[in-house]
Amino acid sequence: MKGLGVSQGIGIGKAFIIEKKPMDINKVYVDDIQNEINRLRNAMEDGKNQLNELYLKTLNDIGEKEAQIFKSHEMMLEDDTFISEVENKIKSEAVNAEYAFNEVSNYYIRLFENIEDDYLRERSEDIKDVMSRVLKSLLGIKDTDYSKIHNNAIIVAKDLTPSDTAQFEKGKIEAMITEIGGKTSHAAIIARIMGIPTVIGIDNIIDKIKDDDIVICDGKTGKVIVNPNEKQLFYYQQKKDKLEKLNIELKKQIGLPSITKDNFEVSLAANIGTPHDVDSVLENDAEGIGLFRSEFIFMNRSCQPTEDEQFEEYKEVLQKMGDKPVIIRTLDIGGDKNVPYFDIPKEMNPFLGYRAIRLCLGNVEVFRTQLRAILRASVYGNVKIMFPMISTMKELRDAKKIFEKSKEDLRNEGISFKDDIEIGIMIEIPSAAIISDLLAKEVDFFSIGTNDLIQYTLAVDRMNSKLSHLYSQYHPALLRLIKGIIDNAHNAGIWVGMCGEAAGDPKLIPIFLGMGLDEFSMNSPSILSSRYIIRNLYKNEMEQIANKTLNMETAVEVEDYLSCLFAEDNDYLKRCNVRSKN
Amino acid sequence: MKGLGVSQGIGIGKAFIIEKKPMDINKVYVDDIQNEINRLRNAMEDGKNQLNELYLKTLNDIGEKEAQIFKSHEMMLEDDTFISEVENKIKSEAVNAEYAFNEVSNYYIRLFENIEDDYLRERSEDIKDVMSRVLKSLLGIKDTDYSKIHNNAIIVAKDLTPSDTAQFEKGKIEAMITEIGGKTSHAAIIARIMGIPTVIGIDNIIDKIKDDDIVICDGKTGKVIVNPNEKQLFYYQQKKDKLEKLNIELKKQIGLPSITKDNFEVSLAANIGTPHDVDSVLENDAEGIGLFRSEFIFMNRSCQPTEDEQFEEYKEVLQKMGDKPVIIRTLDIGGDKNVPYFDIPKEMNPFLGYRAIRLCLGNVEVFRTQLRAILRASVYGNVKIMFPMISTMKELRDAKKIFEKSKEDLRNEGISFKDDIEIGIMIEIPSAAIISDLLAKEVDFFSIGTNDLIQYTLAVDRMNSKLSHLYSQYHPALLRLIKGIIDNAHNAGIWVGMCGEAAGDPKLIPIFLGMGLDEFSMNSPSILSSRYIIRNLYKNEMEQIANKTLNMETAVEVEDYLSCLFAEDNDYLKRCNVRSKN
Repeated sequence: MKGLGVSQGIGIGKAFIIEKKPMDINKVYVDDIQNEINRLRNAMEDGKNQLNELYLKTLNDIGEKEAQIFKSHEMMLEDDTFISEVENKIKSEAVNAEYAFNEVSNYYIRLFENIEDDYLRERSEDIKDVMSRVLKSLLGIKDTDYSKIHNNAIIVAKDLTPSDTAQFEKGKIEAMITEIGGKTSHAAIIARIMGIPTVIGIDNIIDKIKDDDIVICDGKTGKVIVNPNEKQLFYYQQKKDKLEKLNIELKKQIGLPSITKDNFEVSLAANIGTPHDVDSVLENDAEGIGLFRSEFIFMNRSCQPTEDEQFEEYKEVLQKMGDKPVIIRTLDIGGDKNVPYFDIPKEMNPFLGYRAIRLCLGNVEVFRTQLRAILRASVYGNVKIMFPMISTMKELRDAKKIFEKSKEDLRNEGISFKDDIEIGIMIEIPSAAIISDLLAKEVDFFSIGTNDLIQYTLAVDRMNSKLSHLYSQYHPALLRLIKGIIDNAHNAGIWVGMCGEAAGDPKLIPIFLGMGLDEFSMNSPSILSSRYIIRNLYKNEMEQIANKTLNMETAVEVEDYLSCLFAEDNDYLKRCNVRSKN
Repeated sequence: MKGLGVSQGIGIGKAFIIEKKPMDINKVYVDDIQNEINRLRNAMEDGKNQLNELYLKTLNDIGEKEAQIFKSHEMMLEDDTFISEVENKIKSEAVNAEYAFNEVSNYYIRLFENIEDDYLRERSEDIKDVMSRVLKSLLGIKDTDYSKIHNNAIIVAKDLTPSDTAQFEKGKIEAMITEIGGKTSHAAIIARIMGIPTVIGIDNIIDKIKDDDIVICDGKTGKVIVNPNEKQLFYYQQKKDKLEKLNIELKKQIGLPSITKDNFEVSLAANIGTPHDVDSVLENDAEGIGLFRSEFIFMNRSCQPTEDEQFEEYKEVLQKMGDKPVIIRTLDIGGDKNVPYFDIPKEMNPFLGYRAIRLCLGNVEVFRTQLRAILRASVYGNVKIMFPMISTMKELRDAKKIFEKSKEDLRNEGISFKDDIEIGIMIEIPSAAIISDLLAKEVDFFSIGTNDLIQYTLAVDRMNSKLSHLYSQYHPALLRLIKGIIDNAHNAGIWVGMCGEAAGDPKLIPIFLGMGLDEFSMNSPSILSSRYIIRNLYKNEMEQIANKTLNMETAVEVEDYLSCLFAEDNDYLKRCNVRSKN
């Protein structure tokens, strides 16, 4: 059988069929309309809560971009037009909530299914996912129990939603095969990130495979073989082994310095959200933590964490990391990350709103509590502090003043802390990049936050699917800004890191290396391959390549150029070897 | 009597008392709850429609920033929490809509009135304004009839709302005096823009002045004199004459070139929204139109204007302006400016969303229709075309391709047009500023849009009142960006203008002059004073001053420096004279 491979890799294992029973939606006429509206609202509230959990889980386990999928699902449940359409249907027809909800949802699903554009059409899958979540809640149906999945399972299903995929345990799943789906569907995107080989588009797949059949699934070619003969099994096992060898090759990078062939050493650090993530940081031999998103301690709870609670979290991370540096970014709440107990007013443009350091400087007690907790934890390791969303010199100075005051307070209270903690700032707002020469004089380091920097530099909300063609980390304006930031930092004698998604992009690592970036902070699973890349490059060569990109005219031109030179996906090892003089 | 002067100038005239009757809000128990909810919704819908009209009127007559006041009023009527609180009150207590609405509104008004911060406290006035609008609609009360106001009226009222002020006819009103109000209230802000002397904070003012009393009102000192003696009248009449002389001095600028003392000539152009605005452009002797916001032709109507309709509007402006250049900015819909017939989906961050050229390139027919209309009108005057919100080279190229195709179509249809129309772009997105060296090679001119450029460069929504301390046109990062844009333009041999609010700021005009800006486009009433400023300066002096600001650290430092050197409010004439070597 042949489908469309949407996530590379070879999976060999026993089939596990997920059959979702179709939900019975009956039309029932009701007397108590208010009751139906209440049921609807409760179910939607339920759905939003589930989605918020899934958002946080995905943010933590997989990545920010993937987590946004569930944020956008949540937004669907907040769409006023949609809600009032369903409520009007209940009222005007005096029908049950599930019927009205199902009808309105199906209308929108059909709308999307008829769109020509692949990407937009595949958003119908997201609507279905959200719809079934609410319907399940209305009908009292329990979610599929994913814990029954056996090891080395090949998941076979008619359809997988993004929420299904995000909930699979990575180590257990060998591959996924579905009938329905698309290359840019969110389920496929998540599968790629999780490294689960996936094939889609095989008709009646559920009738063709039985539970416990032996199945081979090639996520690159789209080939699926059920109960293979020995020859086939041997061939694919070999292919799979080769891929795994590549992973072993990467494992050999553990313990090696991140140094180019011409002896330029950088630091490869990891981004984390909670102390729980430190295991993966150490496993992948990161040289430190370049971004500890402290807001995770604040999310998913009903009141602000106390100084002691925060202290425990910071202490745990610092102790686990030993001598290695840990950069704690102070609270970055607001924007798309909200917590109920801060009561942030609804904003017209939250990404241009009251968030991060702006919120902290407006709520000094919150800020001071966090700084005190970090200071108290500082004696347990090698901590550095970084302020997010700095846009003016004044904000930096105000933040530093509060920091100094917190130290003074602790001193007066006789509580010990390290007195030489490095203070840095995120450079993620264009104005900060532009005056980075001035800012550099008053901090110990910079960390470039590419995700937001791109948003503001291009005036593109990266969650807005109508603008995905404009959001690009290869835009020459971004590369120029980054070059300027690095030069300004070095001229002032401070070091500069990067903790946005671009820092882990195999095509951009060589460029930033060429520009002289000192630290790359990324998701832990990317550390070893990044080290491999760096160890196979000459910095002086990369300088020239970086300079060349600075004069290119478009993001496509930059990306094409880098794709030719460097690596995509798993091929980068070979490519690097070919490229570098050895 | 002495109050607080909140808008400068002297007003002398006969009093016109505006007495607003308190509205009778009775609590009535109702049976038909749904009917009350419908009445509420209709009244809120009414209010929103009125506010949209007022928004457009103010945008056109007064300015963008002031118009935003009514946009924010509209947003209050869209606040889900608020709406559901009122609806719940109706449902749970079975009461009439006006009572429930009044109760909930008063709760919020009290909340705001108890805030310590002046600015925030004065927002209670906005809530009152919105509340009374909706209550009037519910109670069927007609608005005050402003047409009865006699000429040279001194308006006396307990309280004036922003909507009152925005609806006054400028020429008729000599001054305004109220009991309630604040310096940063929106009513005061609008009064300042309209140049109406205003005094607030005089207790029981309505009992102290009768209709047709002669009143003197000094908007600077806050003094109010009722039925003055001859000496007083003489003194204030003289003072008033002096101010008017200043205006006459400005009138003398008509017909003079906008040229510095060392012979550097610039162009002073005007921003307009509709053909109706051209009168004021000519009256103030603007040398052209630097920004014709073509979206006004699209707003406040139920379907898209046809090619012929647009053609007529463009033709009218071009004919009225004769040989003088008219820069038409192509459609900038989206963001905060929405029209019903385009059906733009609700966005999480509209300012970072699908708007302007992004929307035009995604709706080629809309774009082509506009370009055809402009091309057809081009034979009637001196038109230039400018694309808004360019963030990449590709967008510019795509837009130019569609423009060329439109020309070709017209050629094939035998329709005449000018073939040498200059094409420019707005530089209002940081990425465009950063690659302006590249963009300059493919256009005939730039126009710097400071309003958006500030928003994106600082990541601050300028409508967000919690961030007003961060939004500043004096941020050194902005000045550096602007310097870079001008240099890049000149290096490529093209000219560069500016059409944001900063272009009309008396403190910044000398700086931009020093940087070499070729064209300043502003609201018509600022033209003559800007010309006066320019004619009293030496460009070579301004170059040095501009360079000095580029190395300053904060917006406050820049603003203080410029305030010392140059002018605030009406004093700039004297200051300029003092400063410049004559």
